[in-house]
Amino acid sequence: MGRATVRRRVLRIRESVRSHRPDTLAAEEPMEIRVGGRPLTVTMRTPGSDFDLAVGFLVSEGVVRSAGDVRSIRYCAGATADGGNTYNVVDVALAPGVAAPDASLERNFYTTSSCGLCGKASLDAVRTTAAWTVAEDPARVGQEVLESLPGRLREAQRVFDTTGGLHAAGLFSTAGELLCLREDVGRHNAVDKVVGHALRSGLLPLRESVLLVSGRASFELVQKAVMAGIPVLAAVSAPSSLAAELAEESGLTLVGFLRGRSMNVYTGAERLVERQPV
Amino acid sequence: MGRATVRRRVLRIRESVRSHRPDTLAAEEPMEIRVGGRPLTVTMRTPGSDFDLAVGFLVSEGVVRSAGDVRSIRYCAGATADGGNTYNVVDVALAPGVAAPDASLERNFYTTSSCGLCGKASLDAVRTTAAWTVAEDPARVGQEVLESLPGRLREAQRVFDTTGGLHAAGLFSTAGELLCLREDVGRHNAVDKVVGHALRSGLLPLRESVLLVSGRASFELVQKAVMAGIPVLAAVSAPSSLAAELAEESGLTLVGFLRGRSMNVYTGAERLVERQPV
Repeated sequence: MGRATVRRRVLRIRESVRSHRPDTLAAEEPMEIRVGGRPLTVTMRTPGSDFDLAVGFLVSEGVVRSAGDVRSIRYCAGATADGGNTYNVVDVALAPGVAAPDASLERNFYTTSSCGLCGKASLDAVRTTAAWTVAEDPARVGQEVLESLPGRLREAQRVFDTTGGLHAAGLFSTAGELLCLREDVGRHNAVDKVVGHALRSGLLPLRESVLLVSGRASFELVQKAVMAGIPVLAAVSAPSSLAAELAEESGLTLVGFLRGRSMNVYTGAERLVERQPV
Repeated sequence: MGRATVRRRVLRIRESVRSHRPDTLAAEEPMEIRVGGRPLTVTMRTPGSDFDLAVGFLVSEGVVRSAGDVRSIRYCAGATADGGNTYNVVDVALAPGVAAPDASLERNFYTTSSCGLCGKASLDAVRTTAAWTVAEDPARVGQEVLESLPGRLREAQRVFDTTGGLHAAGLFSTAGELLCLREDVGRHNAVDKVVGHALRSGLLPLRESVLLVSGRASFELVQKAVMAGIPVLAAVSAPSSLAAELAEESGLTLVGFLRGRSMNVYTGAERLVERQPV
């Protein structure tokens, strides 16, 4: 089975000093997700938590919303030339009555028939597929708790320090307890792995929780948080304009540039509890 | 037409000090790429250099390889509810004799019929679609020149400083001259914009050039460099395992962690000219 890191010889240059030494790289391999035997998508991912990734992706797509929607998950026996299983094809069997995703190309073009493709149409698409709303989630998070999350995430990351090449997504309780951490070369994969793990543990929707991502917050990451019922998304770096718009429309709290004791709150500031005077 | 940045009110927290102020976010909007009127893909991108993005994507996909392969590029008149063009749908008309891309879902699954989906199959797919090889490119780059590129990229970035949310891709001559800079919320889009600009300027293949990206180097970015004929790819952060494998198989020079006077050279070190003793 695939590994999360790969060793490789590298020429290391520091000023005028050159040395050849082994280096550790974040592993990247393609993974195909099938539903009921039918290919749905291929993603470049870091091997590990593949079943979480497969069902987490299906949560983001609005296909499944509870562990009961999934009948089974298995690796397909796709073999390499020398007969070994590549463990890069995962097939998800849905429970009876759960509609298979629309695997046609047209699903990507739902917005263009009636009006011009625009951010508004992208927001509408999330609203029509979300199984629950995060707007009324009563979560409250202390400012000190939020400030502590990036440090907790880094502490818990086993791979990052050796490769510098992985995105991390951490799910926390509103008290700051780490519930689940996943890493991947793709930031969207790291989030799908967290959400898939939660689904398989019967935890969706993820009420009163905080999702922290190590990089930037795009529209796609806010979408994944909304689809999983997560009310607070925090990012170490910047959000995009459409990420902030979707967060506002969905009633999700979006925090960016969470570093040290500073942060920017783009939407849903009512969930933040101010620092108490000492 | 779309803008590269969007202003938005934000709650700024610094220690115990809270203030509401306008903030500048990197704009993110969907863009649909059509070929001959047929939808091919939708990407979330920062508006600007949309025609470059469209044809650069087609270079990466192996559809076009010279300006003569493109007959015209235009915005489709996809209108919003109030009648304004969204400028988010771009249609590329190919020149007579240029084969349209396979828009079927199956193009994503070329690898799975004969053997297990694996990194090797992904490498093979690039080899079979590349129009030229970078292995024999005679480019040589001085270590001092490489060290100077991240600073030159940052200087030239107009948007980054205000939003902190954009990836940058810069194309340089081997003497360190900046030939083209593009920014986007998606790193693959920034590279496609650079490559598309080069195609429209009649510059493909981009022999004896260096592409610098502001983040990590994934398989996809190495693929785009190879498809554009770029012999040297440098990244400020880490490469993935499959990025290094494709670089090695293609004869591309891959540099990572390019910071200050240090860097790691993963493949193609023969193109690097050592620092001369003072």
